[in-house]
Amino acid sequence: MTPKLDTAQQHHANHEKHPKQDFQVERLAFFSDAVFAIAITLLIIDIKVPKITKDSTSETVWVQLVDLRYSFFALLLSFTLIANYWIRHHFLFKHIHNYNRKTLIADMFVLLPIIFFPFTTAFFAESSENKQVIILALRLFLLNNILSSLAIYTFYWMAIIKHKEMSFEMAIQEKITFTSDTLFTTIIFLIILLITFITENFQIITWIIIISVTSKKIMDTLLKKRLKQ
Amino acid sequence: MTPKLDTAQQHHANHEKHPKQDFQVERLAFFSDAVFAIAITLLIIDIKVPKITKDSTSETVWVQLVDLRYSFFALLLSFTLIANYWIRHHFLFKHIHNYNRKTLIADMFVLLPIIFFPFTTAFFAESSENKQVIILALRLFLLNNILSSLAIYTFYWMAIIKHKEMSFEMAIQEKITFTSDTLFTTIIFLIILLITFITENFQIITWIIIISVTSKKIMDTLLKKRLKQ
Amino acid sequence: MTPKLDTAQQHHANHEKHPKQDFQVERLAFFSDAVFAIAITLLIIDIKVPKITKDSTSETVWVQLVDLRYSFFALLLSFTLIANYWIRHHFLFKHIHNYNRKTLIADMFVLLPIIFFPFTTAFFAESSENKQVIILALRLFLLNNILSSLAIYTFYWMAIIKHKEMSFEMAIQEKITFTSDTLFTTIIFLIILLITFITENFQIITWIIIISVTSKKIMDTLLKKRLKQ
Amino acid sequence: MTPKLDTAQQHHANHEKHPKQDFQVERLAFFSDAVFAIAITLLIIDIKVPKITKDSTSETVWVQLVDLRYSFFALLLSFTLIANYWIRHHFLFKHIHNYNRKTLIADMFVLLPIIFFPFTTAFFAESSENKQVIILALRLFLLNNILSSLAIYTFYWMAIIKHKEMSFEMAIQEKITFTSDTLFTTIIFLIILLITFITENFQIITWIIIISVTSKKIMDTLLKKRLKQ
Repeated sequence: MTPKLDTAQQHHANHEKHPKQDFQVERLAFFSDAVFAIAITLLIIDIKVPKITKDSTSETVWVQLVDLRYSFFALLLSFTLIANYWIRHHFLFKHIHNYNRKTLIADMFVLLPIIFFPFTTAFFAESSENKQVIILALRLFLLNNILSSLAIYTFYWMAIIKHKEMSFEMAIQEKITFTSDTLFTTIIFLIILLITFITENFQIITWIIIISVTSKKIMDTLLKKRLKQ
Repeated sequence: MTPKLDTAQQHHANHEKHPKQDFQVERLAFFSDAVFAIAITLLIIDIKVPKITKDSTSETVWVQLVDLRYSFFALLLSFTLIANYWIRHHFLFKHIHNYNRKTLIADMFVLLPIIFFPFTTAFFAESSENKQVIILALRLFLLNNILSSLAIYTFYWMAIIKHKEMSFEMAIQEKITFTSDTLFTTIIFLIILLITFITENFQIITWIIIISVTSKKIMDTLLKKRLKQ
Repeated sequence: MTPKLDTAQQHHANHEKHPKQDFQVERLAFFSDAVFAIAITLLIIDIKVPKITKDSTSETVWVQLVDLRYSFFALLLSFTLIANYWIRHHFLFKHIHNYNRKTLIADMFVLLPIIFFPFTTAFFAESSENKQVIILALRLFLLNNILSSLAIYTFYWMAIIKHKEMSFEMAIQEKITFTSDTLFTTIIFLIILLITFITENFQIITWIIIISVTSKKIMDTLLKKRLKQ
Repeated sequence: MTPKLDTAQQHHANHEKHPKQDFQVERLAFFSDAVFAIAITLLIIDIKVPKITKDSTSETVWVQLVDLRYSFFALLLSFTLIANYWIRHHFLFKHIHNYNRKTLIADMFVLLPIIFFPFTTAFFAESSENKQVIILALRLFLLNNILSSLAIYTFYWMAIIKHKEMSFEMAIQEKITFTSDTLFTTIIFLIILLITFITENFQIITWIIIISVTSKKIMDTLLKKRLKQ
């Protein structure tokens, strides 16, 4: 007996399944995927190609390209973050087999901060050489990530925990990992946001970010070892 | 016996089903989803990142960001409205299992006003500080919504009511709710549009919008209570 | 016996079907759909929102909007044409159940002219008030449509006629209608293109377009009557 | 017995299959498709429509269009290359029926260079008339292609070779063809990149490109003959 059949039988026993239920869940996932995919691809259109005239030499154009280094760095950062949020969203849909109006709306709240990424990323890149303004841009970028993370956690909570009947049971280890991952991300971003109101020294903030990311990696490894025991 | 099998048998009894029929309906839904997803994500690219020079301070940039408040408000409004239209479109496809040329064209008429949202939203945001022009922008935005709402109602009427054989039976309560929701939205937007030709006082218009949205919410609650009895 | 089962059995009898064949055909269709959907939605981003200053009045902005009338007209025209090409492409996939490298490449050649629409449409709109330049823009727009039409016909020929084994049999009436539709569109656009090299009088050309579209509609009706007999 | 059933039985025998496994693999493919489709369609928005004033004549506008010839050439080149990478990616998913975190991340690394195409293509077009700068632009464009090719090879290696249990067996000929195709592309681009550091004579480089593409075609034909024997 495969789990597929088991689940199918169980459904038919409990309540009649709408003939297009699977298709509708799929469609919700694909609509969300399309928004993620467009947001991640639009990141590039805010990086303007250097203007080249007849007087341009490889040296002057190289300088113009080097000036774009913060834009490229911001793009890579946002690509990683959006890809990460998409992977979590993707992972949740492995379990979801039905939805109601509330989970539908929770999903829209996941998509809302995602479409802001091209803006906050470009703003971060634009202000990268002005030490005063970059703190403001960093705050906005952090806020964008806090909202994304929180929205994904809320979606998880609505679809997997609160409306259990709409998802396949998630293993307890998976639940712990997902919750800790998502909430930890949110909390780290929140703490860094608070720190930007204490010190505006960008160097100190960078160090705090590096330390917290490293300590998260260590914690992850420890947690995984524990769960395996 | 699950409803899935019932419906399948019924189809085969009535008329032979094309082997790729389900796939083609799916594709129509996904094409529409892609258009909705792109329109909703393109909303952000009309909000231009503030230009930052070496003389910018957090204060001057903050002022530039605050200047964008109407753009952000317009984006949130349009996001909510497009998401709403998508949810209705999504809901209809729960029932549709086949289509003909006319429903196909009706679906294209749903997509046409949707792709105008990035324009009417940006125009609304752009004119937000000019009290004379905002009435014009509001009219265009309302027109965009009236056409979207009407197109969705027409699509519903074509696919569910007129060509019954192309959809699974919708419960009578669902029909009432869908019709009242969609037509009510259309009528409210239409009334507000007419009012903008009587008074150009933006404050009065805002109050009328708030009152009509609130009364709709109350009506919804009453209607739901009735249908449950 | 449903045709679904018939076809399935027939396949298994003839040659072994790859377990992911249906999925791969689907993916090809969805990739194409995404390109169509993006091209159709990008049409709007070339229509720039009028700049509004503190001195703008509803009258000056109205004039600016009226100036955009050719842009809106061009958008509606391109929307109709792209939607039309998509519907044909969509119709073909009702029959295609497999593909080879050649049909894959033929599909890419369908997508290539489609992505040019945002450019040729914007160019057409931009040149609309310069009677000399509009002929040039019209030629480019016609060329874009000729290539789109031809590419769809080639794709049809490759996937349905030449590699019969890759599609479900199309009814002879459907074949006649599809061929006449697609080739007729191509030929009309080609004739109009040739005419622009004879006369550059835009009014005469407009009349020729109106007459040919009308006569096509009449021919369509006659053809349908014939096929029904 | 169809291979479909064989594979299905084999899976159920070996280990229990998650009820949504197929759907999740599909979703990964569609998310990737969406990114490819957006990147390929965004190529057009970097080609700006010529500005037309009342003084423009068909001659002046024609000159402006001719000035865009490098942009159109670069677009066609990038369209071909992205379509090619997509076809390879598409081909791999014919075999993949499951994935793990590592293949998921490998897929993201395929998408990352793809979203850079609108930038490197526009930069290549922009610098086309400045003989000094075009070498720089060519290097960037080559780098973009090297990374794309390498990422696809890595994805193939992860999903098909290293984690054999996640894919249907690929025929040995297919493996040879895929590997030689992908690695050969990478190596050719790499050699040309190295040559740009030896000579900056664009004409010599163009000849080298033409010769290597031609010799690849000849090699392909020879290889195919061999594999058929």
